[in-house]
Amino acid sequence: MIIVLKQGASQSDIDGISEKLQNLGLKVHVSQGEERTIIGAIGDERILRETPLEAHPAVEKILPILKPFKLASRDFRADDSLISVGDQVIGGPKVAVMAGPCAVESREGLLTVARAVKKAGAGFLRGGAFKPRSSPYSFQGLGEEGLKYLAEAREETGLRVVTELMDPRDAELVNRYADLIQIGARNMSNFTLLKEVGKLRKPVLLKRGLSATVKELLMSAEYILSEGNHDVILCERGIRTFETDTRNTLDLSAVPLIKGMSHLPVVIDPSHGVGRADLVPAMCLAAIAAGADGLLVEVHPNPQEAVSDGPQSLRIEDFRELFPRLRSLAEVVGRAL
Amino acid sequence: MIIVLKQGASQSDIDGISEKLQNLGLKVHVSQGEERTIIGAIGDERILRETPLEAHPAVEKILPILKPFKLASRDFRADDSLISVGDQVIGGPKVAVMAGPCAVESREGLLTVARAVKKAGAGFLRGGAFKPRSSPYSFQGLGEEGLKYLAEAREETGLRVVTELMDPRDAELVNRYADLIQIGARNMSNFTLLKEVGKLRKPVLLKRGLSATVKELLMSAEYILSEGNHDVILCERGIRTFETDTRNTLDLSAVPLIKGMSHLPVVIDPSHGVGRADLVPAMCLAAIAAGADGLLVEVHPNPQEAVSDGPQSLRIEDFRELFPRLRSLAEVVGRAL
Amino acid sequence: MIIVLKQGASQSDIDGISEKLQNLGLKVHVSQGEERTIIGAIGDERILRETPLEAHPAVEKILPILKPFKLASRDFRADDSLISVGDQVIGGPKVAVMAGPCAVESREGLLTVARAVKKAGAGFLRGGAFKPRSSPYSFQGLGEEGLKYLAEAREETGLRVVTELMDPRDAELVNRYADLIQIGARNMSNFTLLKEVGKLRKPVLLKRGLSATVKELLMSAEYILSEGNHDVILCERGIRTFETDTRNTLDLSAVPLIKGMSHLPVVIDPSHGVGRADLVPAMCLAAIAAGADGLLVEVHPNPQEAVSDGPQSLRIEDFRELFPRLRSLAEVVGRAL
Amino acid sequence: MIIVLKQGASQSDIDGISEKLQNLGLKVHVSQGEERTIIGAIGDERILRETPLEAHPAVEKILPILKPFKLASRDFRADDSLISVGDQVIGGPKVAVMAGPCAVESREGLLTVARAVKKAGAGFLRGGAFKPRSSPYSFQGLGEEGLKYLAEAREETGLRVVTELMDPRDAELVNRYADLIQIGARNMSNFTLLKEVGKLRKPVLLKRGLSATVKELLMSAEYILSEGNHDVILCERGIRTFETDTRNTLDLSAVPLIKGMSHLPVVIDPSHGVGRADLVPAMCLAAIAAGADGLLVEVHPNPQEAVSDGPQSLRIEDFRELFPRLRSLAEVVGRAL
Repeated sequence: MIIVLKQGASQSDIDGISEKLQNLGLKVHVSQGEERTIIGAIGDERILRETPLEAHPAVEKILPILKPFKLASRDFRADDSLISVGDQVIGGPKVAVMAGPCAVESREGLLTVARAVKKAGAGFLRGGAFKPRSSPYSFQGLGEEGLKYLAEAREETGLRVVTELMDPRDAELVNRYADLIQIGARNMSNFTLLKEVGKLRKPVLLKRGLSATVKELLMSAEYILSEGNHDVILCERGIRTFETDTRNTLDLSAVPLIKGMSHLPVVIDPSHGVGRADLVPAMCLAAIAAGADGLLVEVHPNPQEAVSDGPQSLRIEDFRELFPRLRSLAEVVGRAL
Repeated sequence: MIIVLKQGASQSDIDGISEKLQNLGLKVHVSQGEERTIIGAIGDERILRETPLEAHPAVEKILPILKPFKLASRDFRADDSLISVGDQVIGGPKVAVMAGPCAVESREGLLTVARAVKKAGAGFLRGGAFKPRSSPYSFQGLGEEGLKYLAEAREETGLRVVTELMDPRDAELVNRYADLIQIGARNMSNFTLLKEVGKLRKPVLLKRGLSATVKELLMSAEYILSEGNHDVILCERGIRTFETDTRNTLDLSAVPLIKGMSHLPVVIDPSHGVGRADLVPAMCLAAIAAGADGLLVEVHPNPQEAVSDGPQSLRIEDFRELFPRLRSLAEVVGRAL
Repeated sequence: MIIVLKQGASQSDIDGISEKLQNLGLKVHVSQGEERTIIGAIGDERILRETPLEAHPAVEKILPILKPFKLASRDFRADDSLISVGDQVIGGPKVAVMAGPCAVESREGLLTVARAVKKAGAGFLRGGAFKPRSSPYSFQGLGEEGLKYLAEAREETGLRVVTELMDPRDAELVNRYADLIQIGARNMSNFTLLKEVGKLRKPVLLKRGLSATVKELLMSAEYILSEGNHDVILCERGIRTFETDTRNTLDLSAVPLIKGMSHLPVVIDPSHGVGRADLVPAMCLAAIAAGADGLLVEVHPNPQEAVSDGPQSLRIEDFRELFPRLRSLAEVVGRAL
Repeated sequence: MIIVLKQGASQSDIDGISEKLQNLGLKVHVSQGEERTIIGAIGDERILRETPLEAHPAVEKILPILKPFKLASRDFRADDSLISVGDQVIGGPKVAVMAGPCAVESREGLLTVARAVKKAGAGFLRGGAFKPRSSPYSFQGLGEEGLKYLAEAREETGLRVVTELMDPRDAELVNRYADLIQIGARNMSNFTLLKEVGKLRKPVLLKRGLSATVKELLMSAEYILSEGNHDVILCERGIRTFETDTRNTLDLSAVPLIKGMSHLPVVIDPSHGVGRADLVPAMCLAAIAAGADGLLVEVHPNPQEAVSDGPQSLRIEDFRELFPRLRSLAEVVGRAL
């Protein structure tokens, strides 16, 4: 950690800060430049996080040197993490395809989609039984009934089930039915929920918040990892910007960026990322080209009747047509589908 | 709701959509322009929210006419809501001042601040017993112990207590100690938590999310109101932008904007809004000038030792000096402090 | 255009606004809903742009129906525009590759890169003779001398030259040397400059501004088109967001989005988009997968010595290795390189 | 400047970089920590700006210590700059009020506003003769004719004239008529134009770009200052965020932030900042409370007929009513109006 002092900081300021750092067990280097004095603190700077030196009147700014996360970092683990979800592995050469409706609406509808996406080639069925909706008057999900339909669809098709957990009090319930537990974007900084899934022994799909930096996403992953659950998959699903012709701005550069910083797999959700079905196929292709370990795609038998997120859902026939194009592209970048 | 059709939409598209709207009980007006056909749907367009017409292949876009919230709206209630919190009233001529440390760290420290801010003139004591921290390795709050210290400080000083609830399972506990329950910015879209405080009969301070629009803030308030809790106070605390020299960008225009759209009181948190103690006094003054119903300000006896948010905390003497300046300004804009 | 009136708008407000619209030659439909009255104006709503009905006290909001641009629109021209730049065509099956240093620094350095990118397979040489630098103390470009080196490199290699114009007074000069004139992101809304290149008969590469929506980019293209220059190529180069680990956020969804709205070709600049050489190859692949018509990539013989944008420049050997990967990927999505 | 090396950087990397820095005349400190080696370079780090060490394969990141601007900095000049514009002084105890229409539309209209704002108490008349409009089909301004009307209004009322320059070729023309030359937000990074006004000896009002940080605004001021024109006034006019209910987000914290970093005066434009006349009065009051040195406000005799920015213009009677409220507030914060 580098402490930059204000112009005109006195010797007693320098001595006071240096002493404080030494008392914390850090080694200190003071460099007096022409315009500024800077103090370097060597050692585990994480212990400094509780000591807000920035509040010192002689301090201009603090420049951290180390990353604020540890278990999620490439420094901690150099090899890519491979996460097993039933018979599927995420993070290896095979690109995982997770498809299904935004919300589980009915048993029949879900089974129709499940059979179709299975036949097309997907390995995972997505579908929400608990839905975070911006309006209290909108459909909030079928709850446990929805989870049962998902389990039934898994039984029949062999697809692995991805579904969202919103309430820490439902953790056990969702854990009973899901193969992969999704933490939605709105809950990326719901630390209560993160700790709860950290205590489970079930893989977690952690979505990036609408205004979260990649570093903050990795800090949220650290919450889960530090509780002992090592099976975390990250998901980029669009960030909020000033652009209004897409629902969000899908940040595909997050894929190689995260790959450099962390060993965890990265999945892309182009459906929420752009919010428009007509742009989803191009973004699926681009995601695989960028190196994504998986796709999370909304597919609905009749998007015009979907109770949630219809405008961004692919029709079954669109998804069926898209699949071989994704496969060819995956092969050319050294992956499989 | 206005449905704009794509160029080249056929008569059967127009008829199909019109029929669908009529079946939902809406009156339909079709206008054929030179370049586009538009369909107007008259009636309660909220019932359309579950019917994603945007997914129809002939639809270019949907333009909603009505606001998505109801109970939070000025249309629903023309007069300003006055929220009683113990002997204090928020939303009337008196500007509420809520001051205290970011986190409750110790009994002694809290009592010191409580006495000081009371003496300076504040009516509320703020302090977190449960802290949402971006790192799992940072101080997470004292929990119930912290709540007890807050209650003791109230006992001694008469200040009303504002404190954050993070976990729905702690709702009863926090309700026992708090006079005003804070929902933090990271939890503005934690709908599980919103419903929980909606069931309480205790005023709620709802903070705007880092990337939430004012409309979304009002939708989150609607979650609480629709559960029967009418005592909601909104709080602007800075939004996330590209600027890096302040922690967030404090959106003071949200004050008159919300006042036009809603009857609920609006409080400003300049400490999180800018994240730097040197800018807080100017922002307190500006907030009152903009019409805010209250201020939420971090004050710490020794910001350099604060375990959380030290750089943005005012020292006790800064707060004491600031208070009379706020009072004079409040008077000149027709308020009191 | 739809005019939504405020609750409580009077009949005389409705009549006054209707009359005003009719006087402008528009047909008017009034719909009285339960909560709001709306007025639809049919005809060329562009004539309304000079009449700010939103300032009318009875008007709540205005919802435009038509796009604000015309010549740039897919409605105006259904087929993709093919833009010839010398012997190269942009917008057809072949993906254009434009490579070279950020700034022209020396004759020798430029020729080295030109030969290398030509040999690797590029069709265009990029390089700035006039550089927009955020500091007045940074290298500002070689000016005409740089243009001469570019011309010499074209002479020798046959590469087409792309170079930036910053000052309307240099339009003729740059026009003499360039095959494709670049308008940089900082000048996307420099309407003086847009009109100037609109008067030339030379293709223009128009970069999206850091905070410009896709619609605003198309409006800027409209400035050039409306002056009679039909050869406009759009370039997405990253938008400004809150993320700090990349220089900008590259918005690849802009490719299919623009393709739906406009007939103009779209090129991607991943170098500025992410600002880090290690992420550029993945973003080049993703751009082609997303459907981009070209790439604009910074390549430098020795990035550590580059006077501008070194950290985001590929080394010559990186570019040489990348090229065959781009070619294989282009083929699998039905393009050539 | 601090250079943080990657984990695993070799001794020869360290030596190579150190030697390079020493050759540039900098003193070097190497600190080997547990996880990272860092190199501190002491001396004028501005000479490093042309040497992109970040491109070195062993470098993880560069942390600059010094601010990138010099003449605009408080370090360079500790006292507030007072800028004389005719008989008015900006930056002293008196808050400057600049009012008038967005665009000069007609002689009669301009004179009406000029007389009204003069009578209300304003010291400056604003009005654009050259208008940057996002559509090429919108009114582009009256040009020199508009400048003449402004001069006539000055003659009659004694108000100082603020008007925008867009094209470097018009610099002399605008200089002949204006008392204060405005550089609009879209041109904040039009370095060609900045250099041009830097050569004039006329005060410049420099507006912050829609997506410019405060540091970048100060860098643009540095362009003007470094050409020898010391009379620069900064203007915050709203930045672009995700919020859509206001045109922009007015960043009032920029006022105390800039005051800490620079000696230059700061003016607020609430009209563009929020884009809605109903929010402008509250933002004017808040701006003065925040410490602004002036206001730039749009006033129009009949906003419904304004050819530009009607929805954000105050009516003359609104402005007249507002003025005494501003004056009372200014007095209570130790200023005058």
